[in-house]
Amino acid sequence: MANDTLKLIPLGGLGEFGMNCMALRWHDDIVVIDAGLMFPEEELLGVDIVVPDISYLIENRDKVRGILLTHGHEDHIGGLPWILSELNVPVYGTEFTLAYVEGKLEEHHLLDDAELIEMLPGRRFTLGPFTIQPIRVTHSLVDCVALAIHTPVGVVLHTGDFKIDLSPPDGKAFDLHAFAELGKQGVLCLLQDSTNVDRRGYTPSERAVRPRLDEIFAQTQKKLFFSCFSSSIHRIRLAMELAQEHGRKIAVIGRSLDNSTEIAQDLGYLDIPPGLMINPGQIKEQPANKVCVLITGTQGEPMSALSRAAVNNHKHARIEAGDTVLMSSRVIPGNEKSIYRMIDHLERRDAKVIHDDGTQGLIHVSGHASQEELRLMINLVRPKFFIPVHGDYRHLKRHAEMAATMGVVEKSILLEDGEVLELSRDSAIRTGTVTVGRVCIDSGGGSTDVVEDLVIRDRRHLSEDGIVLPIIAIDKRTGKLENLPEIVIRGMAVDEATMIAEAKQIVQRTLDGSGGEERGDYGVIKEKIRADLKRYIQKSTSRRPLIMPVILEL
Amino acid sequence: MANDTLKLIPLGGLGEFGMNCMALRWHDDIVVIDAGLMFPEEELLGVDIVVPDISYLIENRDKVRGILLTHGHEDHIGGLPWILSELNVPVYGTEFTLAYVEGKLEEHHLLDDAELIEMLPGRRFTLGPFTIQPIRVTHSLVDCVALAIHTPVGVVLHTGDFKIDLSPPDGKAFDLHAFAELGKQGVLCLLQDSTNVDRRGYTPSERAVRPRLDEIFAQTQKKLFFSCFSSSIHRIRLAMELAQEHGRKIAVIGRSLDNSTEIAQDLGYLDIPPGLMINPGQIKEQPANKVCVLITGTQGEPMSALSRAAVNNHKHARIEAGDTVLMSSRVIPGNEKSIYRMIDHLERRDAKVIHDDGTQGLIHVSGHASQEELRLMINLVRPKFFIPVHGDYRHLKRHAEMAATMGVVEKSILLEDGEVLELSRDSAIRTGTVTVGRVCIDSGGGSTDVVEDLVIRDRRHLSEDGIVLPIIAIDKRTGKLENLPEIVIRGMAVDEATMIAEAKQIVQRTLDGSGGEERGDYGVIKEKIRADLKRYIQKSTSRRPLIMPVILEL
Repeated sequence: MANDTLKLIPLGGLGEFGMNCMALRWHDDIVVIDAGLMFPEEELLGVDIVVPDISYLIENRDKVRGILLTHGHEDHIGGLPWILSELNVPVYGTEFTLAYVEGKLEEHHLLDDAELIEMLPGRRFTLGPFTIQPIRVTHSLVDCVALAIHTPVGVVLHTGDFKIDLSPPDGKAFDLHAFAELGKQGVLCLLQDSTNVDRRGYTPSERAVRPRLDEIFAQTQKKLFFSCFSSSIHRIRLAMELAQEHGRKIAVIGRSLDNSTEIAQDLGYLDIPPGLMINPGQIKEQPANKVCVLITGTQGEPMSALSRAAVNNHKHARIEAGDTVLMSSRVIPGNEKSIYRMIDHLERRDAKVIHDDGTQGLIHVSGHASQEELRLMINLVRPKFFIPVHGDYRHLKRHAEMAATMGVVEKSILLEDGEVLELSRDSAIRTGTVTVGRVCIDSGGGSTDVVEDLVIRDRRHLSEDGIVLPIIAIDKRTGKLENLPEIVIRGMAVDEATMIAEAKQIVQRTLDGSGGEERGDYGVIKEKIRADLKRYIQKSTSRRPLIMPVILEL
Repeated sequence: MANDTLKLIPLGGLGEFGMNCMALRWHDDIVVIDAGLMFPEEELLGVDIVVPDISYLIENRDKVRGILLTHGHEDHIGGLPWILSELNVPVYGTEFTLAYVEGKLEEHHLLDDAELIEMLPGRRFTLGPFTIQPIRVTHSLVDCVALAIHTPVGVVLHTGDFKIDLSPPDGKAFDLHAFAELGKQGVLCLLQDSTNVDRRGYTPSERAVRPRLDEIFAQTQKKLFFSCFSSSIHRIRLAMELAQEHGRKIAVIGRSLDNSTEIAQDLGYLDIPPGLMINPGQIKEQPANKVCVLITGTQGEPMSALSRAAVNNHKHARIEAGDTVLMSSRVIPGNEKSIYRMIDHLERRDAKVIHDDGTQGLIHVSGHASQEELRLMINLVRPKFFIPVHGDYRHLKRHAEMAATMGVVEKSILLEDGEVLELSRDSAIRTGTVTVGRVCIDSGGGSTDVVEDLVIRDRRHLSEDGIVLPIIAIDKRTGKLENLPEIVIRGMAVDEATMIAEAKQIVQRTLDGSGGEERGDYGVIKEKIRADLKRYIQKSTSRRPLIMPVILEL
């Protein structure tokens, strides 16, 4: 039957980093792999996050059997609140992944109505015509899976995000056998993580950072601030082990790290010895050389704990001369300026800053497979068709080329968001396109750390909620306001004169209440103004206009 | 006499990259070393360049004997038009440096009134109590000097930007002997380039990129687009040599490269064989494998030739499947996103893109000294006092620490912009501060390449010229405008209704006249809107408001 084809429909992540989302359709049944978000380009002022346009899923809402999650990173699960509020379908994930999802849905008051179903690596389950086989893989996060989806035309294997870590710190091995077995039986199509296609060789194990971090613990004379991605459970575990060995207590600062640590502990990924942990309030009672502070903010996010500590505006995280700040993370492209600005502030406090600038030894490793691992996977799986996923266009292209030259796959296909690929047992044909795109979302609170009042709304409603532009002229030298701020309002249909007068006062107060270093850091000051104004406007009008502070430096 | 001290007064570049400017004062005589610009932080919307606040020099205008230039990079000479328009003093520089300066001053109609005086490496000259000894150094640019300034209390030696290139392509050797001689006679204070203080070892010679670039020329089957910084004369020379050897004609595209090439040829830095060069219009007449296009735009600047070629919007630079685009340059922090966006566009044209991502071999080398060269200079010069210049705070700090631990200098001093250091024969004491800061400047034209109508003005005049915000809602998928653009005007004291109506039409026309790929690239489209609106507003009102396009993605 001519119509007996499986459709692959990428809705996000093929041609960009972030908002990973892929639909598989067999007749009237659809399953979705991942539902991620991405962070916006800097040109999109006032937008906090971006999620995929799921018009296609909404048009076919009665056919969607569920969303399958490969792991708990934001670019794979961050779009769930928005998607579930439009399309409430069951969500499948591993135990750890679902723990992250629960917290996220709870914040948006969506948890009660959500159907979350745990999947176990190695245990198959069926959704309509699809049999799903989760396979344990290793990555920077824990409890990650690849998904082998057995369909009427053959197996579609999605790697999720992975590297082949042969000695993962949690001892949960990458399931090479499952991939080998699938390869023996025959795989129709492999969808593989393209992130590190430009890197030669193999990505080091998560364990590889231990020797250098151990040295840093040994050499640090005063307080050690240890910053890493909050989802880097392996790294948090390592920090705790090293703190224990070097006789330091651990304090955790920053909500996302708190949350991760708690989940990881509950689920047995962290075995914290009694007496190791102290509250942030107890830091000052400890001798400096007996404390290690786990702290959020590796990317210099203006409102993160580390950024605030860097300008001496954090209650518990006081950075003093001789303290060491270790950033066990990479620089995400686009964040260079915020990060270097934060480092300059830290250096002014006479902290020793160790970040991954290539001269500091192995203080961070990537979570994604390098070229040889990608080749190993292709050789193990021997798919008929190969499709790169998870990358900018150039990564997908390079990855497709790499696979094509290996002589293993029959056809290597460069697929982009919105292109529909129809698979039969022996053909893979592009047959059309569906609506895809980016939907911009604006969060309520000012902090990237605290997302309690994240409000999801479509920018299409802008004409209803309007736009507010506080225009502030700051004297660079003194950090002082030159005049009262100007406020421009558009399309809010409110008493503009009153709102403008009050908004001016709010901005003035925000500036008065900020330290000199904060006022000199435009990233920080803009976020503060935005948060304070937003709170005021929401309270007084129940509206959520787009608020975009404009700073003029005099 | 207690007042017999030399004052060092850094006005820019000590605590930031860019706008290098340092004053030396002995009683009633001041000389200034360099007068650079910097590119603004992204938070400063609508600002094109930033120059140092020279209030101190203006207050002491009758004492300023001249501006001494170390070399022709923008961060050392780019502030000259602004500074000379406030303070017309003689400018001293080498032949090549002055050639750049001439072009710059001509654009601003300042050349006729300017007094430009050539300095020759090795030839001393006197300005009041100062005897200036220019010393040839090597760098990514040609004809660069360090400045030994002989003062009544001793020699102050400013390295300028340098690396110790022992085989410079132009054969003009780094003058090790002059530094050694000064070291023997005694140097009071060394001011040294901190850019690469974080890099171990030695920076490779400019010649070191030849083997890999030669390979790339050999392997390229179709057109070769060669992009490098326009001031990289060594690199341009190498491209021409390789083109000649590989039987390719050279076309130059982009005004800044045109300008550099012309100057370098005039001054004998390029010896171009007859018949090598073709006009951009002749590219299409050449077989693809017989042409090399030198092209501007390594940083993905939205209006640069390479960015426009990447979205298929350049008349002569047509990039086709199989062409190679070589970016022989580094990624300047902050430009990652624009660069990667441009690369994605190039990859979609099926060009092979080679950029410095660490996997492509040596296709670029830095122009700044690494740690061992910095140590070598300190050992040669053996200064009593050491002051790091040219870097963010963290670079200065690291550099001061490095010098202090060498056991060579008596005192290593971390000085920042605005701090006055008084030097006697045996003391160096911080005695006060002067006004410093950043002055934001807004250029007229839309192109970073074409700066013809650069208009220099102080942002303090904002209240006179006002602010215009075109707000555009673009559909990401279609690249189409959702409504007519909104225009917000503040403080312009004009017939707002008319201007708004006309401005809407202008923006609409700009969008209609742009290709789909351009409309999808917000960096490009914002620059086009800004340029077109600015032209209209200046023509119709003679005002120069701040224009800040706001793009909302739907």
